[in-house]
Amino acid sequence: MPGKLIDKINEKAEAREPFFSLEFFPPRTVAGGVNLFSRLDRMAKGAPLFVDITWGAGGGNPSAVDPEKPTSSLAVAQAAINYCGLDAMLHLTCAGATKNEITEILHLAKKHGIRNILALRGDPPSTEADWVPPEDGLPFATDLVKHIRSEFGDYFGICVAGYPNGHPDCVSVDEDIKYLKEKVDAGADFIITQLFFDTKTFLEFVDKCRAVGISCPIIPGILPIQSAASLRHLTKLSKLKPPSHIAEKVKQMKEDDRAIREYGVEIATQMCIDLLEAGVPGFHFYTLNREVATKEILKNLGLWKQQKCKQLPWLCSANDKRQGEDVRPIFWQSRPKSYLMRTQDWDDFPNGRWGDSSSPAFGDLKGYHLFTSGHPTKEAQEEKIRMWGFPQTTDDVNEVFVRFITGQGVSRLPWVEESELDSETTNTPLFNEFMKLNLNGILTINSQPCVNALPSNHEVHGWGGDDGYVFQKCYVEFFISPEIFEELLEVLKEFPKMTYHAMNADGSVTKTNLTSSQPNAVTWGVFPGKEIIQPTVVDPISFPIWKDEAFELWEEWGTLYDEDSVSRQVIDYIRKNYLLMNIVTTTLSITRCLKCLRCSLPVWKGLVLLPDNIEP
Amino acid sequence: MPGKLIDKINEKAEAREPFFSLEFFPPRTVAGGVNLFSRLDRMAKGAPLFVDITWGAGGGNPSAVDPEKPTSSLAVAQAAINYCGLDAMLHLTCAGATKNEITEILHLAKKHGIRNILALRGDPPSTEADWVPPEDGLPFATDLVKHIRSEFGDYFGICVAGYPNGHPDCVSVDEDIKYLKEKVDAGADFIITQLFFDTKTFLEFVDKCRAVGISCPIIPGILPIQSAASLRHLTKLSKLKPPSHIAEKVKQMKEDDRAIREYGVEIATQMCIDLLEAGVPGFHFYTLNREVATKEILKNLGLWKQQKCKQLPWLCSANDKRQGEDVRPIFWQSRPKSYLMRTQDWDDFPNGRWGDSSSPAFGDLKGYHLFTSGHPTKEAQEEKIRMWGFPQTTDDVNEVFVRFITGQGVSRLPWVEESELDSETTNTPLFNEFMKLNLNGILTINSQPCVNALPSNHEVHGWGGDDGYVFQKCYVEFFISPEIFEELLEVLKEFPKMTYHAMNADGSVTKTNLTSSQPNAVTWGVFPGKEIIQPTVVDPISFPIWKDEAFELWEEWGTLYDEDSVSRQVIDYIRKNYLLMNIVTTTLSITRCLKCLRCSLPVWKGLVLLPDNIEP
Repeated sequence: MPGKLIDKINEKAEAREPFFSLEFFPPRTVAGGVNLFSRLDRMAKGAPLFVDITWGAGGGNPSAVDPEKPTSSLAVAQAAINYCGLDAMLHLTCAGATKNEITEILHLAKKHGIRNILALRGDPPSTEADWVPPEDGLPFATDLVKHIRSEFGDYFGICVAGYPNGHPDCVSVDEDIKYLKEKVDAGADFIITQLFFDTKTFLEFVDKCRAVGISCPIIPGILPIQSAASLRHLTKLSKLKPPSHIAEKVKQMKEDDRAIREYGVEIATQMCIDLLEAGVPGFHFYTLNREVATKEILKNLGLWKQQKCKQLPWLCSANDKRQGEDVRPIFWQSRPKSYLMRTQDWDDFPNGRWGDSSSPAFGDLKGYHLFTSGHPTKEAQEEKIRMWGFPQTTDDVNEVFVRFITGQGVSRLPWVEESELDSETTNTPLFNEFMKLNLNGILTINSQPCVNALPSNHEVHGWGGDDGYVFQKCYVEFFISPEIFEELLEVLKEFPKMTYHAMNADGSVTKTNLTSSQPNAVTWGVFPGKEIIQPTVVDPISFPIWKDEAFELWEEWGTLYDEDSVSRQVIDYIRKNYLLMNIVTTTLSITRCLKCLRCSLPVWKGLVLLPDNIEP
Repeated sequence: MPGKLIDKINEKAEAREPFFSLEFFPPRTVAGGVNLFSRLDRMAKGAPLFVDITWGAGGGNPSAVDPEKPTSSLAVAQAAINYCGLDAMLHLTCAGATKNEITEILHLAKKHGIRNILALRGDPPSTEADWVPPEDGLPFATDLVKHIRSEFGDYFGICVAGYPNGHPDCVSVDEDIKYLKEKVDAGADFIITQLFFDTKTFLEFVDKCRAVGISCPIIPGILPIQSAASLRHLTKLSKLKPPSHIAEKVKQMKEDDRAIREYGVEIATQMCIDLLEAGVPGFHFYTLNREVATKEILKNLGLWKQQKCKQLPWLCSANDKRQGEDVRPIFWQSRPKSYLMRTQDWDDFPNGRWGDSSSPAFGDLKGYHLFTSGHPTKEAQEEKIRMWGFPQTTDDVNEVFVRFITGQGVSRLPWVEESELDSETTNTPLFNEFMKLNLNGILTINSQPCVNALPSNHEVHGWGGDDGYVFQKCYVEFFISPEIFEELLEVLKEFPKMTYHAMNADGSVTKTNLTSSQPNAVTWGVFPGKEIIQPTVVDPISFPIWKDEAFELWEEWGTLYDEDSVSRQVIDYIRKNYLLMNIVTTTLSITRCLKCLRCSLPVWKGLVLLPDNIEP
């Protein structure tokens, strides 16, 4: 993941694996931000080589780089890297800005883990005749490239724009290519082109570039026509007219956006097929912040890789400094972005981060609302009440959990970032058992089944590539009422292979049968020529920190209701009185002991803490 | 294992688990040393709490502490600790030595990992009337105890001797107990008594000790009568007369040593049973460097624990500084003492010693011959020729390997320290397959089968206690002729889950499909509340070092024959031309690929590199 895009592009080109990248613009509102990030998460599943975030409207617009403003270009690019695991390139325009301003922006970008810049001139902040560019400014993109190289050496990867039809301000394509050559000579790594409407235009442009000695990769920029309005908008912006046969066809379809989009997908797919045949290494898509058309084209081309095997069982960050990260506590399994955010200030993620027992410092969740429908818009609040209802008793709360697990109208709970139960739960025998658990007064929020030596490319449980095996200890985490908790402790005394850890909200009750504060590996993988990789642990040291977060999440539910309402009291009662408990079972085959556990107490009837073993 | 014996004694006493310790004297010759160490290895299997090495004949005898002299008391005690995994106490006498000499000895002992001293006065070096004790000497054991405490604080555990029948030089038992009290008050941790012939003597002694305020553990010293001669010798030494009924009985048996030994076992067993009933925490056995009688008594008492579960899959050292050691390369699996010796100067054995790729510095094998019948006595040489014959072709060498594996008259090969094939090979499907391999021109010297989730207390493969599971990748290591090697490489290309590493003697040929020098975990264990423990690795960095040792071991075989003989030429040919190769197979279930491997080349016919999976 890490480093400069040119290395990844060269690697793909050498392996003859076509890639794609996706361009997005920053949202205008916070709600738009929430939408964009969930779109980025969905698009990440297709495994783009990188995403590309355009510069805030108006060159030098300070809001574009304000990392505190969640809608700024910088904030979106860094969040894509740090929280969505996507490599991201940030646009940067120089017109109207001073050298110092640019330097400052680049330092900010570096600080947030951004390694790649698309260097553009951009439009001047004013077209009025009396506007004077700043004295110590950078008038052209070439100057910006030189400035980046002189101030930051090789730190940043630099991309520049190519204009197959010539830059709107330029007298000819040939003259424009002269400027492009200057940009590349100044230190740019590769070129992404503006949109074009036929393959020939692009290929002739590439030939001319090669003829003047431009040898770096040139990535065609593809604009899927998605509606009549967007076509009009874009041709205005790029000052390019679509060929008459395309314009004619779109005109015929009038304002039937769906038909136009289908047509757009069709012609873009064909163009991409032609370009692949002509030898392009990959494509850059101008998505206009939409996903359907681009996704369809990618699927047509066979470039959408939904089932790509994960390198580790959790969402990796694309930030360089986290590249060595190889272990995380399981507690944040359903809230990876929360974990990433709370650990963003950590200096390193060495092998065995969880091996020493010093208490790690977790940061807060400022800005986290962008990544979750937990953001309290009126619409979101209404949706939650629709899902979670007005519980009158704790049994009603249990029912909500059961409906979540069984997919009956509850698509999210506060402890889950994503709006779907992951396939590890729904595809396994755990499914039924958790339903029973939740029917019996226990509220499960996290779990994984026992896995013994499944192939590492297994569709549900696999990670780490093709040639290994993956393993898991069974894990279950839940809120439990004090009464049931006491009964459970009695039962657990008989099971030396089960370790547990439980705390109430204020930490005044803590119970565990752990004899040390060492981390307990719950997921591991066996691969040729390697040590055992153990990327997920239950860590007694960070459990109290997670406990605070988990109890606080009841707030999201409780505050839906009036302060004096019964529903509010029910939720508050649970938060104040229940315990958060995790149990790990080190049993890799079905054992007699589970049957005992199942029958030993009425409340555990029908409960199997450890499900059937999942064997190859 | 580590630390002071008093802690272990108290622990055992508290748990009401009777223990035993064994006293040995240093050997007079190197051949005697070889015998003693193989005896220590055999006795280690019964899990004594510690062994106790007497001081070299004659107090202050410098040879007793010369660590370079393999028969010195110090050398034996440190070797027991460092190479046999036995906690060892060293006797130390003070009569005739200066304080400085004693301090020097204690520093040497500390340097070699000894933590426990039995402090004795000892006999003066001369009984002649004109002998004058040194001016700055330590006339009594009490002085020695004080000296140890003043110079070394709490570092050493200190034991002193008690005399149930009174010290030969003392006027009465009561006066003797006064001196004993002084020794304890000076800082001794516990007491071992001299031999006695009836329980009553010991128990009265203990009562008297308690009466004067001696509260530390008092361990009865047990002498099994093993022959008429040894009884005579001992009564002379201890100046004690056996009771008349015993003397009479022994006299009746005349010189029938076997009958006397059986009688000795019988009365010692009964005495121990009586003492256990009276509440003693354990026993100290004066073995006289023999094993049969003591072992029988221990078995009678149920204290011999042959099947004790190992904490790790390899022989742990009892040296404090190795207590954190948790990973070793598999190469030395059949030569643990060689590994221990070559790494004795390492400063630490941290978690992940094999995790960094810096080349570890291995020491040489000076003194190693004590631990192996590799020591070239005439007798040993003749035994080897009897086993290994006079090979006329490489096929003859193969036959020797096959006879070793099948137990037909070849009890040892140069690459194996112990004289038996370990149960991991003989008890598994590997057995037949290795026979086939060796019939096909390959000479196997090390291996382990694939193991998937066997209980950690499994009789053959288990280690680490009761509640976990153990795993292994399949490992095989062998010498192979260059011709077969080339064919094998072709076959291996098709098996991405197999990693291999091969080198010839001078290192001019090195072939591997490893892409990094990271260690490859081949044994690991899964336990409740812990990270995955991975105590055995195949380490590409130390393989070249092992390779040198493995090729050099051909010398032990080759030098049996005249320089010009055909046999010598055959062995030299193998050493100079063959490669040493290891293969690790990361396959945890029986796979199709093995069948291919089996059939793909004539030489591999009938060969299964990876045997049937060993499942619970």
